[in-house]
Amino acid sequence: MQPITRDTLDIIDSALEEDLAYQDPTTACLIPPDQRGRAVLLAKSPGVLAGVGVACAVFQRVDPTVEASILREDGTRLKAGDHVAVVRGSVRGILKAERTALNFIQRMSGIATLTSQYVQAVQGLPVHILDTRKTAPGLRLLDKYAVRMGGGRNHRMNLADGILIKDNHIAALAAQGVSLRETVRRAVEQAPHTLKVEVEVETLQQAEEALEGGAHILLLDNMGLEEMALAAAMARGRALTEASGGITLEKVRAVAETGVDMISVGALTHSVQAMDISLDFQV
Amino acid sequence: MQPITRDTLDIIDSALEEDLAYQDPTTACLIPPDQRGRAVLLAKSPGVLAGVGVACAVFQRVDPTVEASILREDGTRLKAGDHVAVVRGSVRGILKAERTALNFIQRMSGIATLTSQYVQAVQGLPVHILDTRKTAPGLRLLDKYAVRMGGGRNHRMNLADGILIKDNHIAALAAQGVSLRETVRRAVEQAPHTLKVEVEVETLQQAEEALEGGAHILLLDNMGLEEMALAAAMARGRALTEASGGITLEKVRAVAETGVDMISVGALTHSVQAMDISLDFQV
Amino acid sequence: MQPITRDTLDIIDSALEEDLAYQDPTTACLIPPDQRGRAVLLAKSPGVLAGVGVACAVFQRVDPTVEASILREDGTRLKAGDHVAVVRGSVRGILKAERTALNFIQRMSGIATLTSQYVQAVQGLPVHILDTRKTAPGLRLLDKYAVRMGGGRNHRMNLADGILIKDNHIAALAAQGVSLRETVRRAVEQAPHTLKVEVEVETLQQAEEALEGGAHILLLDNMGLEEMALAAAMARGRALTEASGGITLEKVRAVAETGVDMISVGALTHSVQAMDISLDFQV
Amino acid sequence: MQPITRDTLDIIDSALEEDLAYQDPTTACLIPPDQRGRAVLLAKSPGVLAGVGVACAVFQRVDPTVEASILREDGTRLKAGDHVAVVRGSVRGILKAERTALNFIQRMSGIATLTSQYVQAVQGLPVHILDTRKTAPGLRLLDKYAVRMGGGRNHRMNLADGILIKDNHIAALAAQGVSLRETVRRAVEQAPHTLKVEVEVETLQQAEEALEGGAHILLLDNMGLEEMALAAAMARGRALTEASGGITLEKVRAVAETGVDMISVGALTHSVQAMDISLDFQV
Amino acid sequence: MQPITRDTLDIIDSALEEDLAYQDPTTACLIPPDQRGRAVLLAKSPGVLAGVGVACAVFQRVDPTVEASILREDGTRLKAGDHVAVVRGSVRGILKAERTALNFIQRMSGIATLTSQYVQAVQGLPVHILDTRKTAPGLRLLDKYAVRMGGGRNHRMNLADGILIKDNHIAALAAQGVSLRETVRRAVEQAPHTLKVEVEVETLQQAEEALEGGAHILLLDNMGLEEMALAAAMARGRALTEASGGITLEKVRAVAETGVDMISVGALTHSVQAMDISLDFQV
Amino acid sequence: MQPITRDTLDIIDSALEEDLAYQDPTTACLIPPDQRGRAVLLAKSPGVLAGVGVACAVFQRVDPTVEASILREDGTRLKAGDHVAVVRGSVRGILKAERTALNFIQRMSGIATLTSQYVQAVQGLPVHILDTRKTAPGLRLLDKYAVRMGGGRNHRMNLADGILIKDNHIAALAAQGVSLRETVRRAVEQAPHTLKVEVEVETLQQAEEALEGGAHILLLDNMGLEEMALAAAMARGRALTEASGGITLEKVRAVAETGVDMISVGALTHSVQAMDISLDFQV
Repeated sequence: MQPITRDTLDIIDSALEEDLAYQDPTTACLIPPDQRGRAVLLAKSPGVLAGVGVACAVFQRVDPTVEASILREDGTRLKAGDHVAVVRGSVRGILKAERTALNFIQRMSGIATLTSQYVQAVQGLPVHILDTRKTAPGLRLLDKYAVRMGGGRNHRMNLADGILIKDNHIAALAAQGVSLRETVRRAVEQAPHTLKVEVEVETLQQAEEALEGGAHILLLDNMGLEEMALAAAMARGRALTEASGGITLEKVRAVAETGVDMISVGALTHSVQAMDISLDFQV
Repeated sequence: MQPITRDTLDIIDSALEEDLAYQDPTTACLIPPDQRGRAVLLAKSPGVLAGVGVACAVFQRVDPTVEASILREDGTRLKAGDHVAVVRGSVRGILKAERTALNFIQRMSGIATLTSQYVQAVQGLPVHILDTRKTAPGLRLLDKYAVRMGGGRNHRMNLADGILIKDNHIAALAAQGVSLRETVRRAVEQAPHTLKVEVEVETLQQAEEALEGGAHILLLDNMGLEEMALAAAMARGRALTEASGGITLEKVRAVAETGVDMISVGALTHSVQAMDISLDFQV
Repeated sequence: MQPITRDTLDIIDSALEEDLAYQDPTTACLIPPDQRGRAVLLAKSPGVLAGVGVACAVFQRVDPTVEASILREDGTRLKAGDHVAVVRGSVRGILKAERTALNFIQRMSGIATLTSQYVQAVQGLPVHILDTRKTAPGLRLLDKYAVRMGGGRNHRMNLADGILIKDNHIAALAAQGVSLRETVRRAVEQAPHTLKVEVEVETLQQAEEALEGGAHILLLDNMGLEEMALAAAMARGRALTEASGGITLEKVRAVAETGVDMISVGALTHSVQAMDISLDFQV
Repeated sequence: MQPITRDTLDIIDSALEEDLAYQDPTTACLIPPDQRGRAVLLAKSPGVLAGVGVACAVFQRVDPTVEASILREDGTRLKAGDHVAVVRGSVRGILKAERTALNFIQRMSGIATLTSQYVQAVQGLPVHILDTRKTAPGLRLLDKYAVRMGGGRNHRMNLADGILIKDNHIAALAAQGVSLRETVRRAVEQAPHTLKVEVEVETLQQAEEALEGGAHILLLDNMGLEEMALAAAMARGRALTEASGGITLEKVRAVAETGVDMISVGALTHSVQAMDISLDFQV
Repeated sequence: MQPITRDTLDIIDSALEEDLAYQDPTTACLIPPDQRGRAVLLAKSPGVLAGVGVACAVFQRVDPTVEASILREDGTRLKAGDHVAVVRGSVRGILKAERTALNFIQRMSGIATLTSQYVQAVQGLPVHILDTRKTAPGLRLLDKYAVRMGGGRNHRMNLADGILIKDNHIAALAAQGVSLRETVRRAVEQAPHTLKVEVEVETLQQAEEALEGGAHILLLDNMGLEEMALAAAMARGRALTEASGGITLEKVRAVAETGVDMISVGALTHSVQAMDISLDFQV
Repeated sequence: MQPITRDTLDIIDSALEEDLAYQDPTTACLIPPDQRGRAVLLAKSPGVLAGVGVACAVFQRVDPTVEASILREDGTRLKAGDHVAVVRGSVRGILKAERTALNFIQRMSGIATLTSQYVQAVQGLPVHILDTRKTAPGLRLLDKYAVRMGGGRNHRMNLADGILIKDNHIAALAAQGVSLRETVRRAVEQAPHTLKVEVEVETLQQAEEALEGGAHILLLDNMGLEEMALAAAMARGRALTEASGGITLEKVRAVAETGVDMISVGALTHSVQAMDISLDFQV
């Protein structure tokens, strides 16, 4: 079960604040303060669940007397109609929290569902599906948690937990007359000793230079399948390889078959299709 | 141009914080603190621009000495290759900010682009395309701004700036033996006098009841086209009508032709496809 | 009972912080950490109670082990000597919280008391007493809650939950050659569809123009009683009417008799006389 | 001129936030983003000015391009019609900030005006008018600044910058069999060495006990005039004396004539009458 | 026991945040989420305990289900091997919190230990050992609490709870031709009536001037022992005296014997040697 | 020059807040608001400078009109009497900021000075001096910056930017029957692919197991010099080695001569001796 840390509570609070959830005139006009009810969160379409704990926390944040019970754990494959949680208590509280709770769980389950499709597409192959830092601003931790629930792995959580030398870095050093090999060498020498050095390369020649410079990981960006296979072979035993760049569900298995160790997919978090989950009152 | 209010700066700050943008070991290892450069934000695919001001603000928030010039205003229809802004200054600062800036502008332009497709689909008809409160948690104001840039209009910004009686409210009152008409009447009587009362209805009979109760707006949820046309006709001169419920790009013109005043589309903000915009260094 | 939302806790926290309530040398010098006691909040003068929940929350915020029991609900008409709550527990904790708790309940009960005097003055007439946005900075929600406890209704909570075209807006558009009628028409056309359009008018001619422009509500500002009665009559069936502008307790019934639907009174919140409520220890 | 510290900016920000000043649909509908104007803050009734700097800061916080010029300094005695500041720039920005700016300056000037009336009432006598900690929650620093602008002095800013042994402390120690003299003695012994010890007394006998215990200041609470004069005489040369307890404008001079050194008046900040100051556009 | 106030929780939260304690990949990789364990905090060297409550609060802040029991109270003199607290529960939670908890208790116990050495060095003499405002930024309250646990007393908590006229103030007034006596006199006249006036002096002549000006406390800065004794004698009965300026453990008793009332030592908090306390798992 | 990021401004703000720097009665009583002056920050003892930028930022945060010029860059070796910065402007502003500014620069320079002593002690040997996470709560980034200014390198900034398997982790897995080798293997397999795996070992046998498990770095904890040399030899070409555990200035060169790659020293940040730097007014 996802722990609801202070970070998560802060995000929940700012979501409730932007919705002015504590100043809801509709419930104030209509719902008696003491009316109690019961509602279920249920899937309206198939998918992989993520964020049920966050959704429950939203209800309890709005009104600590609301009880929320999780019926399915994050990571569960759902079919339409499955109940994932039940909330009980003040109808006012539940209604004020409804939209915010759904906004979290629908996005997170959307991410988990898409991730799981990528993971299934490469089933049986020795490759990991990774996310990127292309997450919705403010939702990094939740987006990446959802990727894990879908069976993916996380790439860097932030700029600080890995060295990744990208095209713009390489260009900036080239402008000073520094070769790729030397760039990589400097990074290996200067990097915090607990971090590996990953280098984005677009050609086999760059790959070779990066390896010579001491790169621990190669990011093969937008390479053709054949070239990618050659790069993966060249790196084997010397560095890990990661494929990236517009890799669709259709194409991902072919990429995996090139022998890369990892495939990163920005769409997992930057182009999310919300999963259809709703709150049904059972008054 | 979008004003960068304190709300927006707070979102930018939390995005930079979750990326630990001020602790970037890659630039610290490789880029001299005094290297200066110039980079452009450019469209890699066609779409409608939104968020260029936010993206520029991200660069300047990371390093106030970076200069950012907007070349195209939000709302502009872009083709692949168009430059939308140019940033100049500390290469370190620009690189630390790059991903966060792109995460904003790619999501916002994705929203504007999808919205504009809906707006174009109903062109010539007297109808407004509306968003919903189904936004990414924490990004409500930016998501809704992007909808406006795409030519759409905003529905409620939060729970407090409109009365919207939805199925769950109606069910909660029905559980106490209160009819729909009486529910609406109570809301009209109790609501803050500056707010209109909108009522979600699924049948013509509910529509009639809501109108008799004094509803100012009918939300026609998941109605068939014929029924919707009847409801729109029934309401004309008595209340505004809004269609909602799984309205796709394919279906939206037919819905508009029923004569409703507004069409609301959750997908505008809950199922965003990031627009492909990148930062290219011109060192 | 007033729910203590996170918004309210934030206000309580900043009040305790400005009082450095956790660094109180007087209790540190004199009161043993384990001394326990019992104290009552009691009215020293007659009035209408508001804020007893907030006051109790202050004690518990300073020391969660203090127990606070509410004896009278907000909205109760009190006479001098009435006990409204009892607090039990650490004497240190109670004493640190005392002043802050009293500052809340005295102001809020002062507002409720004044409001109830206005409400009583128009008893039997079909009119609502409204507050304004002239509240103490930071205390908007509590001030407006207190108005409700006194029997009043709330006008806009903030700039966003109603369109109110005031003299300065009208002047700004007039400066561009836009007539009042056209100004109102534009607002009706452009306003979020869930909001009504209220227009401040000072003459019968302005009232007529505003009505022709489609105003939903007329704010009759500083009109004489006769003119107000004419305006109210002119608007009946076309728009709601609200009287405002220096309406004293002496004058309010006459204003109500003009037939306006609502009377707004800034003094309810901008010129509060604290109600005399104190904490008495019963050691 | 009042410095606008970070504390003050925080209060301004929360006032703007509770007003949703950045989401104002009225100006969004009506005022072109590029319309510029000029408006004056002017007194509508006589009084003493306080808060003009805060009001100006509000306008600039909403829109940093708005220029605000202070025409009269805080502490100035105003007559109706006096202009106190002029603001120039974006009409949208000015209108969004108007109400919040006025809420600050009206309250603060109300406090300064009332304070100055007390100060005038005791003119020529060697006595200071003091405020109390009975301020509006969150506005302590501004309320107390306004008192100074009215010619008053500040009592404790918070619980930590003075020892004040009040009735409830005395009762708590009496419950443990500790005499008033011993209570005072302990405080003198235990108090931080930079703080004086003030003791609330209600009788001459208590006054004597407190003096014997070493009190530096006597707070004469709700004493009759004669008794107060005796207490003041008894304390002269041994301790300062402060009168308090329902001291009205009518009564204050007689109290001052008893020879006390200070008179504290809760009403200065807990029962404020807003001064009538308005914003007039000169488009 | 030290109360864990909201101030303290804020410091704990920012310490956990800078450690990214909720994103610990080491425990995520290795420790099953349901593994439970028991660990003790124990002294590895002798010293005086301070901060055991803060350390326990850190564990519970990271994971509210972790139980922490305090075995020794703050202020206890420890020998190597003494257990001071025991924590039980989620091993993940305990390990994430370990370093942050230790950082607090090691620093605080280091302060208490050093303070107690000073206090012991002057045992039997009528003098208090005081801290200063030379604390680690952000840790003022905890640093000063630790001083108390070591048997010391606190000097000013902040700039506002005492008047202290230092060399730079005196120089600034001298630059305007104001004598020390007059400077002190002005401060006594203008100071909030609850605060004493302390004056830093470096010579007997300055001491005399300050006394004539009405100083309540003399801060004897960097005086020789003989001069200090003369100053203390001169001040007796007229003002308190405080010695300061590079007073080492070796020298402190001699300083105390000059007859000063207080000795302040910046090193107590600005040059802390962490006490060696560790967490031992007993799985 | 150290960039003053938002993180740093937040720390500065909380330091100023705990000092109530904006409510300083001493300057309010004595210093005219318009008095301007000039003061220098100067070293009173030799050492290595760090934090001059932070100190300058403190002055400007208190009063943005104060000008602060840096005369020596961080990292400079200072002798007693060297001027490091000059501040000019409002005397009130400078005096309010003085203590807070000094608290930062004295601690940071203390850290840099101690670090430089360790670095000098190992001069000529191929080894890096590292800090640890044993920093003052809330000051992690500044403490670690100061280490770099002293010529040291940083170990992990937080729990998330490196895998470090410590004694308690090993014990927790041993309790489940998992060998050290298997523990390391699991971490290598599960760790984010950008992070290296470091393992704390106390014996040569553990070192061998860790290497077999695939450890990238060995942390040699509290080993004797001979054993350490053997471990370093065993690891050469297979993993980096880091020595730790009570390594004093006296002992550090001998440790370096064992051939380890890095030496980490907790005392650099947990047992700081403030450098003597003061502010001298030159009015």
